[in-house]
Amino acid sequence: MTKFTKTLAAVAVLGGLTSGAAVAQNADAETQIVAVLDRYEAALNSSNAAAVVELYTADGVFMPPNVPAQIGTDALLAAYGGFFQMISFNLDFTVVEIIVASEDWAFVRTHSDGTGTLAANGVTIPQANQELFVFERNDSGEWKIARYAFNSTLAAN
Amino acid sequence: MTKFTKTLAAVAVLGGLTSGAAVAQNADAETQIVAVLDRYEAALNSSNAAAVVELYTADGVFMPPNVPAQIGTDALLAAYGGFFQMISFNLDFTVVEIIVASEDWAFVRTHSDGTGTLAANGVTIPQANQELFVFERNDSGEWKIARYAFNSTLAAN
Repeated sequence: MTKFTKTLAAVAVLGGLTSGAAVAQNADAETQIVAVLDRYEAALNSSNAAAVVELYTADGVFMPPNVPAQIGTDALLAAYGGFFQMISFNLDFTVVEIIVASEDWAFVRTHSDGTGTLAANGVTIPQANQELFVFERNDSGEWKIARYAFNSTLAAN
Repeated sequence: MTKFTKTLAAVAVLGGLTSGAAVAQNADAETQIVAVLDRYEAALNSSNAAAVVELYTADGVFMPPNVPAQIGTDALLAAYGGFFQMISFNLDFTVVEIIVASEDWAFVRTHSDGTGTLAANGVTIPQANQELFVFERNDSGEWKIARYAFNSTLAAN
């Protein structure tokens, strides 16, 4: 869970804002976004759908493989709840880059590695994924997951 | 190929810029981004790796399933070239939303539907995917694909 924080120093900020105030604002955005990603990882690894969905905007879009886009709190709760009934995760996320595009939007690329244990038979299988997040800052100044797509980087069976 | 253009009128622009000039700027950005997506679709359907890669930034990142992120022109050429040796596509992309996040960054959600024909045996298989693109405007004012992840929305085998 600490890997996000550890890798932050290496994250390249490619946003266009370059003034001193903007640099500080970007750094603050990054810190907050990394905290959200830490919470996402923890919620995922504890199979807590409500805690996951709290990290999304109300109109957030989750784009997992093999399922059409799931949009909004209710759909997200159902989707994550369904996943957690099938599999429990032990994943470690690593931030590859954070791009603060504006005061209210940012993009994040991560990868995650670990295992998933299938509820049906208790079998543990390797997991390796890459993720592309869009973050949005809400009116309260909180960064939330607005869009999120991922896929497996493991070779196809 | 024309579907992108047809759906543009229905695209919601959720970017934070609200002045008259900014609205016009957003509309211009959308038009350019849709044109890039049209060219992407055409290049994909004609198995033209060079034409695909031209649409990316020099440090563009392509995140297809079952392959780690491919970064930069050379890697992208190899990745798309490899795909086109295995499969030829006949896909129709539909824009779901374009959000212009700032003067230089935007993101786009699409889905694509159609078929892929396997080079190995000539078998044609259904394709249905969802895509999340991050676009960046370069110094010449051209919008390019900066980051791009997708996955299949078909049920897992």
